[in-house]
Amino acid sequence: MKKRSYVMYSCPETDSNIYYATGFMAPDPFLLIVKNGVRYMVMTDLEIGRAKKQSKVEEVISLSKTAAEIDKDSMPPIEAIIEHLLNKFKMKSFEVPANFPAQIYSYLSKKRFDITIVPDPFFEERAYKKEDEIKKIAHSQRMTEEAMGKVAYILREANIRGKRVYFDGTCITSEYLKRVINVFLMEKNMVGGHTIVACGNDGVDPHNEGSGPIRPNESIIVDIFPRSTDTFYFGDMTRTFVVGKPSEALLRLYDAVLSAQNKALSMIKDGVLLADVHKAVQAVFDNLGYKTEMKNGKMQGFFHSTGHGLGLDIHEPFRISNVPGYFRTGMVQSVEPGLYYYGIGGVRIEDLIVVQKDGLKNLNKFPKSIYP
Amino acid sequence: MKKRSYVMYSCPETDSNIYYATGFMAPDPFLLIVKNGVRYMVMTDLEIGRAKKQSKVEEVISLSKTAAEIDKDSMPPIEAIIEHLLNKFKMKSFEVPANFPAQIYSYLSKKRFDITIVPDPFFEERAYKKEDEIKKIAHSQRMTEEAMGKVAYILREANIRGKRVYFDGTCITSEYLKRVINVFLMEKNMVGGHTIVACGNDGVDPHNEGSGPIRPNESIIVDIFPRSTDTFYFGDMTRTFVVGKPSEALLRLYDAVLSAQNKALSMIKDGVLLADVHKAVQAVFDNLGYKTEMKNGKMQGFFHSTGHGLGLDIHEPFRISNVPGYFRTGMVQSVEPGLYYYGIGGVRIEDLIVVQKDGLKNLNKFPKSIYP
Repeated sequence: MKKRSYVMYSCPETDSNIYYATGFMAPDPFLLIVKNGVRYMVMTDLEIGRAKKQSKVEEVISLSKTAAEIDKDSMPPIEAIIEHLLNKFKMKSFEVPANFPAQIYSYLSKKRFDITIVPDPFFEERAYKKEDEIKKIAHSQRMTEEAMGKVAYILREANIRGKRVYFDGTCITSEYLKRVINVFLMEKNMVGGHTIVACGNDGVDPHNEGSGPIRPNESIIVDIFPRSTDTFYFGDMTRTFVVGKPSEALLRLYDAVLSAQNKALSMIKDGVLLADVHKAVQAVFDNLGYKTEMKNGKMQGFFHSTGHGLGLDIHEPFRISNVPGYFRTGMVQSVEPGLYYYGIGGVRIEDLIVVQKDGLKNLNKFPKSIYP
Repeated sequence: MKKRSYVMYSCPETDSNIYYATGFMAPDPFLLIVKNGVRYMVMTDLEIGRAKKQSKVEEVISLSKTAAEIDKDSMPPIEAIIEHLLNKFKMKSFEVPANFPAQIYSYLSKKRFDITIVPDPFFEERAYKKEDEIKKIAHSQRMTEEAMGKVAYILREANIRGKRVYFDGTCITSEYLKRVINVFLMEKNMVGGHTIVACGNDGVDPHNEGSGPIRPNESIIVDIFPRSTDTFYFGDMTRTFVVGKPSEALLRLYDAVLSAQNKALSMIKDGVLLADVHKAVQAVFDNLGYKTEMKNGKMQGFFHSTGHGLGLDIHEPFRISNVPGYFRTGMVQSVEPGLYYYGIGGVRIEDLIVVQKDGLKNLNKFPKSIYP
């Protein structure tokens, strides 16, 4: 690997690049300076002990000691500390990521450092998962499937009474099912954030998390994407169910989405264009007569990408969409076509796959059926 | 309020400023352009329906339509879209936050826009919580106290057998207690991330989350800081317990921290200097002979701030530390002195308070005792 020189200042909790570079998780931003591949992490007194133990960098530097080299009496701004260290390390020229803070960039630019802003992805290698990363994602996905199993069980055992659905005497709502999912996941050291259980027209808006009673005979989109509190890798899967009897139109929608997903899964392997798979999914829908358009100010049809990369972030490069680029061995991608129409409902089916030389490995085993 | 003009491009999941400005939560970055106080949110087809329903901005603009005004065939980079809209809105001069992406800043600077980078905090008003924000934080804190109650109950009922502690036949570990806390919180729609249950020397490193068996007669720091999945506001509290009999040295440490906290709580009101409270806490420790120093490469004593602001972020301005600034009515702050010595243990006691004209409102009712 090329020995890069770069500067980052961000919080690993919200910026996976600095976690990827250091292996250190913390609730506050910190400074990372890398010179020819040698990583220097600059830590507060509060974090320096833990950083020395837990991080994988070559050297951990004390922020307070560095600050005292500049000003004995008060803490200089982070820009001045970076400038001081860059001069000390004789670094005139270095890279920063696209999301590097403008305030620091502007300060350093005026000091005549030669800064290259690297467009995303800063670490292209993050897209190609190593063996141990795939293991971590596969574990997260297994827990996600177990959570989906809990939902399917409840929906399978539920009874319809009028316009409501009951399980164990309780009227089932989106909120109830999301709590079942998230509590189960937490028992497995997984944090489910923004879990979606969206019934009927709620599900037509793909990021509507769903609310209120589950209604019989309507689509129920269940999209679970938790992050491990141990490894920080995500899982992500979606199934669509109906309690009772789906309409003919909803059944046709389900079959269309399933055949679009199967088409995508049959095409993916090392060297295939991302855009070709997305276009193939669109073609399946077009051939079946499903239109994508704005209607009464709301999008209907198929209006998101076919999938996204996943790892330390829920959405990573690359989108399976009309963009340049190829599937490459080691990429972990969601494959999740969907169709959404007011009055009929929403259907999305999502698996997580690892791209291989001659095909793919599907990290899901969960059955695909509209009947839970 | 002054009618500001500014540009933001970030993800509300990880950047509370754009959530504060728009009231819209989403898993991906989006663009916000504000001209003289009028907010324009630029959304993908995927999010535009939900954005119109859920956000509190004046206008939601379609990203795909904007893109088509520039290039009919492919999606232009976000920089070009921002440039196009700024020209359309006749905005030559505007503010950006300190963490605005360097890549976009550099592009726009070259296009001769007049950009003011605003140092943090971008929204100073975020520090002064409104009535409804305080209610939300108080709710999060009540749930946090209930979770602490679960831990105290387990530790109170636990039995010592040799060097281990048992509850209900189970050997109690940090991992076990963290799971109890986080699962309970999830049942209450609260996400506990990085919950700390750190026994003995683990607790001497204030951000060590703790691992392994709980040992009798040693300090157990329990620090819980969950975020509501409904309101996105945090709670935050810490207690320190012992199962069995604390050493004399540990008891003295506990009393010192408690009296330092009481000193701080007695001083805080509108108009008091942040630094004065921090210095008073340090003085309590100094007078009792507790030294803060690096020993064998590890910090010991009192080496973090006395507290921090809290709201949509776990750490918000202002630190109660040797910094400029005053306590002002409406600020929500943690007050959490601590002492940490290898061989004796760690003690931290943390409440959440609201600054008032003549004192403070403590959002905690949980008792403070080393005996659970």
